[in-house]
Amino acid sequence: MQLFYCPDINPDQIYTLGKEESQHLVKVLRQKEGDKVHLTDGLGNLFEAEILEANPKSCIIKVVNTQEEYHKRDYYLHVAIAPTKNIARIEWFLEKATEMGIDEITPIICQHSERENTKHERLEKIIISAMKQSLKAYMPKLNTPTPLLEVIRNSSETKKLIGYCVGENRNQIKDIYKPKESVLIVIGPEGDFSEKEVEEALKNNFQTITLGKERLRTETAGIYVVNIIHSINQ
Amino acid sequence: MQLFYCPDINPDQIYTLGKEESQHLVKVLRQKEGDKVHLTDGLGNLFEAEILEANPKSCIIKVVNTQEEYHKRDYYLHVAIAPTKNIARIEWFLEKATEMGIDEITPIICQHSERENTKHERLEKIIISAMKQSLKAYMPKLNTPTPLLEVIRNSSETKKLIGYCVGENRNQIKDIYKPKESVLIVIGPEGDFSEKEVEEALKNNFQTITLGKERLRTETAGIYVVNIIHSINQ
Repeated sequence: MQLFYCPDINPDQIYTLGKEESQHLVKVLRQKEGDKVHLTDGLGNLFEAEILEANPKSCIIKVVNTQEEYHKRDYYLHVAIAPTKNIARIEWFLEKATEMGIDEITPIICQHSERENTKHERLEKIIISAMKQSLKAYMPKLNTPTPLLEVIRNSSETKKLIGYCVGENRNQIKDIYKPKESVLIVIGPEGDFSEKEVEEALKNNFQTITLGKERLRTETAGIYVVNIIHSINQ
Repeated sequence: MQLFYCPDINPDQIYTLGKEESQHLVKVLRQKEGDKVHLTDGLGNLFEAEILEANPKSCIIKVVNTQEEYHKRDYYLHVAIAPTKNIARIEWFLEKATEMGIDEITPIICQHSERENTKHERLEKIIISAMKQSLKAYMPKLNTPTPLLEVIRNSSETKKLIGYCVGENRNQIKDIYKPKESVLIVIGPEGDFSEKEVEEALKNNFQTITLGKERLRTETAGIYVVNIIHSINQ
């Protein structure tokens, strides 16, 4: 199955695919009039459509079947993570997290940040590509880089966790997170969070978590927490 | 801390670093006579050594302290995985798995394999680099590509698991794996295992496992199981 992303599709009307998608569908996949194609709006809808006109520049289709809330999760997973110096590493996180399943990603700006800017459009493209490849109908929300303290103070998730490398009283995710809880997990830069940042998080009802005995890179830590939350919810 | 890999080091004798390591240590890190440096033999020993002669071509050192069984795990994790068509993806798996902690990796040749050959030396370099970066004293064992049936028939781990996308009676890792058990987990190619391969695995005391609700790429599935095993053992 190949999935196309059409955020502006209206299932009640005929729809014309963009140039790139039309070309891919007609030239590369060699689909013809009457063939079926799958599309999503990234909002949870999986559409099955029929090709009315296999034009390689503007392919016309009509939705014939809609699956709403396709593979909807009953928990909300939000990861706020410090962009890495080598941006390829955080791009890799976006790809893998989308594939594994994530609802929201916030790049954060911390005291020890190695990088504060990201190319939003480029990152969004990576998410879209991963969403299509892994057949998701929900597109993860990607926020623009936000100061950590703002994220900490404005978060509304039920469970709020912050990964921290120092201290004795850190929790394991599996001991404090319960299935179906909405959760925000904050992952810091290579230089870790500052003490002040952790204090501020604790004041705002965050709990510190350990990410295991190994020294993980930022993006690896991000993937680790995504896996653990899914595993607990399985 | 920077870690050097010296498989042939003998802590009772003075040791001369290779050309590349010497250059890195003396030219890049600007270490001088009397400075301390960390090395591992990949067999569990973490050595602290003193620089006797900061020669940028052949730096001479002497071990002054040895930590044996550095960060030794009390469980054994072996992942047998089908190399991906795009080899970069399996290289990424090797890097991340080493960073997260793994004892043995076997590339497997299956009925639906997309690739049967790998460049052993190149893959080993990736493992060494990840081991140094993440400060591990144990180097994961990398086997050469092996037919799946051979892996299945010769495995000696306590728990034997095979990831499979079909069927109703598949287990979740967390329900059947107990902490400290040695475990072999077999991950198939994009086209999944054949029915015959799964039958053969079941005959040899393997249990089928599900890797969650999401459609994961081979290398992502590999990382997923590594994370779950570590989480259960934490």
